[in-house]
Parts: sequence; C-alpha cells; structure tokens
Amino acid sequence: MPKNTNLFAVILAGGSGTRFWPVSRKSRPKQFLNIVGKRTLLQETLARIQPAISAARIFIITDVTYGNIVKQQTARFKIPKDNVLLEPEGKNTAPAVCWAAAIIQHIDPGAVLAVLPSDHLIFGRKRFLKVLREAVGLAQRNYLVTLGIHPTRPETGYGYLKTAKKNIGGKQIMMVERFTEKPSLLKAKQFLRTKKYFWNSGMFVFRSSVILKEFQKYLPGVYRAVGRKAGMAHIRRVWKRLPKISVDYGILEKSKNVAAVPARGIGWSDLGSWESLTEILPKDQRGNILKGDIIAVDCRDTLVWTGRKLIAAVGLEGMAVIDTPDALLVCPKERSQDVREVVNVLTKKNRRER
Amino acid sequence: MPKNTNLFAVILAGGSGTRFWPVSRKSRPKQFLNIVGKRTLLQETLARIQPAISAARIFIITDVTYGNIVKQQTARFKIPKDNVLLEPEGKNTAPAVCWAAAIIQHIDPGAVLAVLPSDHLIFGRKRFLKVLREAVGLAQRNYLVTLGIHPTRPETGYGYLKTAKKNIGGKQIMMVERFTEKPSLLKAKQFLRTKKYFWNSGMFVFRSSVILKEFQKYLPGVYRAVGRKAGMAHIRRVWKRLPKISVDYGILEKSKNVAAVPARGIGWSDLGSWESLTEILPKDQRGNILKGDIIAVDCRDTLVWTGRKLIAAVGLEGMAVIDTPDALLVCPKERSQDVREVVNVLTKKNRRER
Repeated sequence: MPKNTNLFAVILAGGSGTRFWPVSRKSRPKQFLNIVGKRTLLQETLARIQPAISAARIFIITDVTYGNIVKQQTARFKIPKDNVLLEPEGKNTAPAVCWAAAIIQHIDPGAVLAVLPSDHLIFGRKRFLKVLREAVGLAQRNYLVTLGIHPTRPETGYGYLKTAKKNIGGKQIMMVERFTEKPSLLKAKQFLRTKKYFWNSGMFVFRSSVILKEFQKYLPGVYRAVGRKAGMAHIRRVWKRLPKISVDYGILEKSKNVAAVPARGIGWSDLGSWESLTEILPKDQRGNILKGDIIAVDCRDTLVWTGRKLIAAVGLEGMAVIDTPDALLVCPKERSQDVREVVNVLTKKNRRER
Repeated sequence: MPKNTNLFAVILAGGSGTRFWPVSRKSRPKQFLNIVGKRTLLQETLARIQPAISAARIFIITDVTYGNIVKQQTARFKIPKDNVLLEPEGKNTAPAVCWAAAIIQHIDPGAVLAVLPSDHLIFGRKRFLKVLREAVGLAQRNYLVTLGIHPTRPETGYGYLKTAKKNIGGKQIMMVERFTEKPSLLKAKQFLRTKKYFWNSGMFVFRSSVILKEFQKYLPGVYRAVGRKAGMAHIRRVWKRLPKISVDYGILEKSKNVAAVPARGIGWSDLGSWESLTEILPKDQRGNILKGDIIAVDCRDTLVWTGRKLIAAVGLEGMAVIDTPDALLVCPKERSQDVREVVNVLTKKNRRER
C-alpha cells in the first residue's frame, strides 16, 4: 500500500481497562500485554499500520503513568519522541482526540487522522488496510468515518451503529443514523435481524480540520482548552478541568456527518472480556482453550490460562480459570465481565493486585 | 484417664494418599500437613492419645522415605527412636500391623494394641478416649475390635460394617457380621435405613497375641515373614515378597471374632476428599468455606483454599478451588475424588508436582 502523505495515526493507549484482570493490571493494562502472539497489542497495532503510515506521522496518546512503558514498547518502531502525547490524567477519548487533532492540524492542515485503539485484535491485516483506505477516501470528502463491525451475536456490551445507505454524488455511502450504547438483549436481537446495524469498533477516520470544527460545535469547552497547539505547561494547567467524555458520545452521536465503512473480514476482537477470547482462539475438540501447563479431565467449553504453574481442571464446563503469579480468577465464562467488581474491590482496598 | 500399662498404640503413618492433592503430595502426604489447626494430622493423632498411652508405648510405622519427616514431627512427643518402624516399601496395613504386633508382643505378651491411622481428624478428643477405653475392655476379652462411625450420608467411598447385637456372658456386644467395601449408592441408602451399619473407621483395638493368631490363620505367609520379632536385615530381606493387603481385607473380613464399638460423637472425618472438609469446617452464610486471601462475588456452596495468593471467585456454585505455589486444582466439589486421575497422570509423566 503506498503511504498516503496526508494520513496520520492517533493511537489511543491510555486505557486502563479491568476486564482482562488478573492478566491485565492498572500498572500494565492489556494494550501493553501480548495476550495473543509474540508482540503486545500496542506493538501489533503499530505493525498493522506501518505499511500505510510512516513513523513520523504516527502519534500515540497515553496516560503520563504509561509514558515509560510506551517508550519501551515502541522503540523499535522509531516513533519520534514528540509524537508520544502524555495526558496528565485519563479523560476518556474526546479530550485526547481533540489535543492530538490540534497538534496534527498544526503540522499538516490537510491531515486525515486514523484514530485507533491500541488494545484490539485484528487478524486480517491486509484486509484492514484495504478498509482503512476506503475510510480515508470518505474522510477526504469531509465525513467523520467510523469502521463498523458486522455483528455475529446479540452482544449487549457493545455500542451499535444504525446505518442507512444514501446516494451522494452518484456514490452509495453508508451514513450512520444513530448510535445505541449497550442495548437490551431483546433490542440487540432485533438489531441483528434488520442487518442495518454494526458494532461500533471505536476506530475512526476524519480530517483533523473536520473533527476540530465538530469539537468547536459540540464540545466547545474541550475545544477552547486543547483545540489549538499548545505547550505541556498549558495542557497540564487545563487538563484537570476537562470532562471525562468519549469522542463517540461527545461528538459522533451528535454529528450529522458520520459515515460508516463496514470492516468485513478484518478478524476483529476488542478483547472485551475473557469470554471474547473464545471466539478467536482455536479450541480443542471439546471446545476448550488451554494455554499453559494444564491437565484437563472431562472439561468442556472451558478456558484455562496459566503462566508457569500447573493447573488441574476436572469436570469443568463453561468455566474460565486465569492464573498469574500473584492472583487467580475463577468464574463461569459468561460472568467474566464481572471481573470489574473484583477490581473495584481491589481498588477500594488499595491492593497491589488491582 | 489413667494410663493403661498394657495399652500400646500403633500409628499408621505410611500412606501416600492422593486425594488432598495439590496440598498433599507424594513427598508430603496429608498426615504430615496441618490441614486444620496448628499441628499436623500426625501430631494431632499423637496429642489425642497422649493422655492414655505413654510415649514409650507409642509405635509409629511408616515408609522409610518418610522416616525423617516422622522424626521431625514427633520429636516433641519424645517417642523412642526404636519405636519408629520403617517399612522398606508400602505394603498396605496387614504386613505393618503384623510386624508391629510381633515387636510389641515381645515387649509385653499381654499387650493391647490400638491401631490408629495418622491422617484422620477427630474433634472430640475426650469422647474418643472414652470410646477407646471401651474398645480396650472388649479387646481384653479377646475380641478384634473396630471403631464404627455412625453414617450420616450414603457415602459410596467408604467401607461399611454390618453389626448384630449378641448377649455374651450377660453383656450386649455388637458383633460385626459383614464388611462391605464401597457399596453402590442404592445399597448405601439401604444400609442407612437398617441402622445396623457403621462406617469402618480403620481404627482397631486387639491384643497383640490375638491378632498374631489371626495372622497365623488367615495370612500365614505374612505371619511367617514378620510375625516374630526380627532385626531390620531380616525385614529388608522378606518385605519385598509380602503381598500388598489391608488388615481389614486380609484378617478382619475373615475373622469370626470382630466386635464393634460405636464411636458416637467423636467428630470424625477421614479427610477422604476436599469435599469431606465441607462437613467439618465452618461455612459462611452462603455455604462457602474460604481459606486465605479471597474475594468471592456471588459464590455459593464453594470451597476456596489458598496459601499466599489472592483468589477472585466470581459466580461459583459447588466448586472447589485449591491453590498451592506450584499447582492449582479447580473442580466441582462432587468431583473432588477424581483428583486421583490427575495424580495418576502426573505420576506417569514423572512430574515433580505429584
């Protein structure tokens, strides 16, 4: 793929998700772990876009506490030091995207940004670049573009995009009519039947100039604070007062200008829970995924994940057993989202295992 | 309780049971562990009989590989060095009992032996000594006495004693009519209804002279090999050829001379499985037993056992989670007997975790 000289990446690497606990931790969330494969998810994200975007145009935005780990993990990708933006604290994605857009707009007023989470899996790299190219084409026509994933189950933990095809200038464009965050199971089932709905992947492509205008309109406070290039002293001063708000909720749900590109066949997973792994990793004949030194007797549909320690699993069905040197999780797979409650308890108790 | 100068103890400490894996190991089976309380089960066994039997009359028979650990754990009980009998290899209980009986018979021809496993729990110590005294009385009248436990559930993993009351010399004696090893569930339920059945506790009391005569009759090969006091050189020479056979199966099931003493209220558990712990340890309101650093969310009827590591248990019901530094077991509690299969695999693979 020829590199598009207007295309920049903004990699979101500040999240401290809890849903892969105990493997992911506050001090080392999942984008910095190699859940699958040899490289960490952040490194996989960089490797995936390398053919399309040169290092000088890749920006990474993260929490200041992850500054060192980002530098370590990205060293081999030759990302310029100044391209790692360190948020004084986590404010969700809207302030981060606005700040990054302002910086890039200053470098290249014609820039197109690909905003990409750093903690998702995408197996179909070539296919992904093709989808990205299509999204860039639409973004150059001033759309806010979101990559939509074809839903494969009535997942209630995701956001959904409702789309409608429109004929614009002789071309079919899939416009986003509505965002629905975490629907009921009933609604999610209806969504799947209509075939008009996609999962919101959290991957967005737009011109920096276009998104900044949208910030000016829908999040003027954020825009005023970080919508123009500014030094770190300024950022540190204003950041604390910014709202915690996502770019989806703060901008895209309100904008009339959002188009979707179906990301068919890219082999995507947001790794949103231990259960989500069961959709992407190979299973044995009984539906088990067994990673590590495991003796399984009469187990079915079970995920066992261990580092060095021997795990004996006997008579388990639909369970998840996740072992790390200092913490172990055991739960039915379908309860794996509830690991958040565990992390909440650990956080309240100020435990180092959080 | 006044010490009975004819009463000797033979503590059986050679077992290498696998059912408490991964906490118990081949190199450190459960009699050498403090599963419950501050002392090991072997030490508890010694402490329990101390009021009735002086150290000089307590014998411990164990596998030679456990010689050092027995010496360490019994040092404070002042057991004479010569009273620790080291079997060249495990041959089940019959050869061990015959050898011990021969040695003690040589010391005191009028001796009464209390043969006691070292890996059972008995909470009611005073009550136990009372039952023991009763058994000694019968043994002095030349019965082979077995302590019977009132069954509380139709357990299929135990041996049962069928008893019948007989009036002998103006006294009601409960004679054992039949031994039934591991009945079907149907049979076990029938046994419970008749009220004539007891669990075989594996605790026996008999005169050394009487049991030696029974050996002569029912296991003459064992008797010829180890039925007279002999030096270790002799034992080492003959031991290898002895059959692996239990005293229950080899002698008591055949003898016409077995009486039972109901061991009511002694708070007994053979700790035959992780599940068995749930009968004796205190539970929380939801029926959980949680030992160690555990965060339990929505768990019921579950046993979680850990040393130093944090365990998060979410949404578990009827499960057992047993963690040790190098091995972890997860299974439904009712499958906890099947841990044997795991140990078999480990043994075949010659794994150090067995």
